[in-house]
Amino acid sequence: MSFVSALPRNDTGIKTAMGILKQRLGDRLQTSTSIREQHGHTTTWHENQLPDAVAFAQSTQEVSDIVKICATHKVPIVAFGTGTSLEGQVNAPAGGISIDVSQMNKVLKVHSEDLDAVIQPGITRKELNEYLRDTGLFFPIDPGADASLGGMAATRASGTNAVRYGTMKDNVISLEAVLPDGRIIRTGQRARKSSAGYDLTRLMIGSEGTLGIITELTVRLQGIPEAMSSAICSFPSIDAACRAVISTIQMGIPVARIELLDATQVKASNAYSNLTLPETPLLLLEFHGSTSSVSEQAESFGEIAKDEDGFGFEWTASPEERTKLWQARHDAYWAGLAMRPGATGIATDACVPISRLAEIVGMAQAKYEELGLTAMILGHAGDGNFHTTVLVMEDDADEMARAAEYVSWVSSTAISMEGTCTGEHGVGQGKRSYLRKELGDAVDLIATIKAAIDPDNIMNPGKII
Amino acid sequence: MSFVSALPRNDTGIKTAMGILKQRLGDRLQTSTSIREQHGHTTTWHENQLPDAVAFAQSTQEVSDIVKICATHKVPIVAFGTGTSLEGQVNAPAGGISIDVSQMNKVLKVHSEDLDAVIQPGITRKELNEYLRDTGLFFPIDPGADASLGGMAATRASGTNAVRYGTMKDNVISLEAVLPDGRIIRTGQRARKSSAGYDLTRLMIGSEGTLGIITELTVRLQGIPEAMSSAICSFPSIDAACRAVISTIQMGIPVARIELLDATQVKASNAYSNLTLPETPLLLLEFHGSTSSVSEQAESFGEIAKDEDGFGFEWTASPEERTKLWQARHDAYWAGLAMRPGATGIATDACVPISRLAEIVGMAQAKYEELGLTAMILGHAGDGNFHTTVLVMEDDADEMARAAEYVSWVSSTAISMEGTCTGEHGVGQGKRSYLRKELGDAVDLIATIKAAIDPDNIMNPGKII
Repeated sequence: MSFVSALPRNDTGIKTAMGILKQRLGDRLQTSTSIREQHGHTTTWHENQLPDAVAFAQSTQEVSDIVKICATHKVPIVAFGTGTSLEGQVNAPAGGISIDVSQMNKVLKVHSEDLDAVIQPGITRKELNEYLRDTGLFFPIDPGADASLGGMAATRASGTNAVRYGTMKDNVISLEAVLPDGRIIRTGQRARKSSAGYDLTRLMIGSEGTLGIITELTVRLQGIPEAMSSAICSFPSIDAACRAVISTIQMGIPVARIELLDATQVKASNAYSNLTLPETPLLLLEFHGSTSSVSEQAESFGEIAKDEDGFGFEWTASPEERTKLWQARHDAYWAGLAMRPGATGIATDACVPISRLAEIVGMAQAKYEELGLTAMILGHAGDGNFHTTVLVMEDDADEMARAAEYVSWVSSTAISMEGTCTGEHGVGQGKRSYLRKELGDAVDLIATIKAAIDPDNIMNPGKII
Repeated sequence: MSFVSALPRNDTGIKTAMGILKQRLGDRLQTSTSIREQHGHTTTWHENQLPDAVAFAQSTQEVSDIVKICATHKVPIVAFGTGTSLEGQVNAPAGGISIDVSQMNKVLKVHSEDLDAVIQPGITRKELNEYLRDTGLFFPIDPGADASLGGMAATRASGTNAVRYGTMKDNVISLEAVLPDGRIIRTGQRARKSSAGYDLTRLMIGSEGTLGIITELTVRLQGIPEAMSSAICSFPSIDAACRAVISTIQMGIPVARIELLDATQVKASNAYSNLTLPETPLLLLEFHGSTSSVSEQAESFGEIAKDEDGFGFEWTASPEERTKLWQARHDAYWAGLAMRPGATGIATDACVPISRLAEIVGMAQAKYEELGLTAMILGHAGDGNFHTTVLVMEDDADEMARAAEYVSWVSSTAISMEGTCTGEHGVGQGKRSYLRKELGDAVDLIATIKAAIDPDNIMNPGKII
């Protein structure tokens, strides 16, 4: 059932490289078990596979130097930001060196007129937005966790407001990376669009550290909207809720977030956050724009919801009231865990064309019930992306096997509906086995590119392919 | 001064492949000079380099078969849609076979609920939008020419409304392509977002036929906005106009188009279209949204323009009035040519961070005057992308040399301002020599990818690198 298997190790090379790195970095090369464990840490269920050492890099040049040493001795390299990835991306199945870039966390430049910022990869999204607070600008991508921007780019992350602002691929203008031989490249300059050659920026985004290590990013910023409004509405069925989502998108209402909670998730949130929401499917929305447009948008959605037998529709533009209205969503993860004390949450990440969302969510609910699992569903409905949180006791082998069956079923079913096994968490170790089903022979093209750029397979081996 | 040079030819291979293709395709393999000339045709000034034959393909399988035959005999292949590219992308400097996909022009499926369509590469954007007319949906990218969607993707095209809807990279969900060995791959399925492996979709977009031939596209569609409004405003200087653009973007007004004409272009348009616009820099805008939001957007822009000493501000939401207001922009290309009968227009394509737009436009005007050239400037100001139309007599060698100097100056200056030599026309033959200045050693990474995927360099040789 495990998605994690060890790869052959190059013990001699690793030992030699560690000796050189120790001389070069001193205390910034760490080998304690606790630090190594933390750097191989994976959220959800993947086993921990420790790197042999963790190198804390402080500059692009230093990343390049470390990579050159590792390249010379054919030693695996795993880039590390905050360790919030979910699919085993930071595990080290062949050992090697974890390069921690969390100390490279500066904002190098904000260009307010151009709505962009040049940043180091270790800065987290909350730190970036904190830094931007007085500029009237913000960075929109919000994957939930306070992840590092480098990691978010590497995983092609997105989150709740991708329906309006896109994913990391849409919000990075260009980047700097260290290639597997230590060369430092920049994929582009700072113009908002360019047709100058292959899209190396997008090639690096989503490559999960298998082609190089991102050492700098130029990211797009957005003006903080003049106003925001939030709305919630309950629906008699998942189907009705999804029809309301489709109408909203079709009518071109520029919704910033549109989240779906299933009845079980609402029930969990009621219990955890002391709410009294009807225990039926719930949509939560957020609108960004001018004061008049955010009320117009909320009210237009209200009309759509009414047509789909929505009830309990409420909206507000007041900041405090907005937080209250979204309480069920903000607490969703913790509310889920609280339903089964001691359990671990396993998150699926399927994404389908939105016309198929209601169908697959309905099937998924039937499936986890059939398997006797405790689970609930929460979706970025505007993108057709939904997560099942399956609550498992990790020491119950039978339950873990049933959870694995469910994860496999969701991934395969989404693919059979022209969707993907991963909307935003990436492939890592956990989704590798579904890639050929989803992409067919294009997987061979991925392998060709990987082999050409990293012929010795030292960059995050055992991930994606 | 020419950007075009012939490459070594594989005469034996070409002859053999043509014999086999003739048997396979019959009349759909054409070798007449006129057809070959048309398929090597490049808009603007690049010399015509003819392919040896043109193969009219009718299906993906047929493209694959033709590619396999060419691959066996190491024969160059140039993909052809409508021939509206501007940088010599369809020229055949080593001869070979032009694969014309214009007969592959069907809409295979429209998914209204998912706002996407599956199309063949030969359909043009006007044909696609004509097809969509009754669905309430449209495909937004408008590069001016009625280009094929396959070609637009291959060149990473955009146009006037990229400021709102993005470029081709943002509007293709996935695609099917024939690789240099004839294998058919699909880069993804139909979910609106995915983190499943390397972004092969974006790798193919902008690769200008050097990595494969696009044979099918799944494109994003937009709901036709409930309302549109248009506005124009004159400004005392390019600087003032650009400051108004920056404020508009910073304030988050979701402008759909924001175009800049310089005083010479306005003068040309006045003469050609019988208008009486003040002969100073002009901004033309378009807003999409609800009825109330498009008036709010236009009026907000009016306020911004006033702060920058804008004058002659007018806006309207009536379709006929909108066309009249935008007349100067619609006729800009023809108005330019009419200023100098018999002249050819050469278009530059620099794109800079918008904070630098006023500066480079001012410098460009001084530069073409210093060189004694007749020229005018028109820009997609919201993206920092501007085109100079240089009017040249092609038989005047001295003038052509001065035009070449100007093109070179614009490209280099844009790059030195953290911009790009090509915002939307692509590299082709014309911009190859600037690529290393712009991308540095990343050019070597492009070469590595090209060599890995197309080791015999049969796919559009002599382009990009």
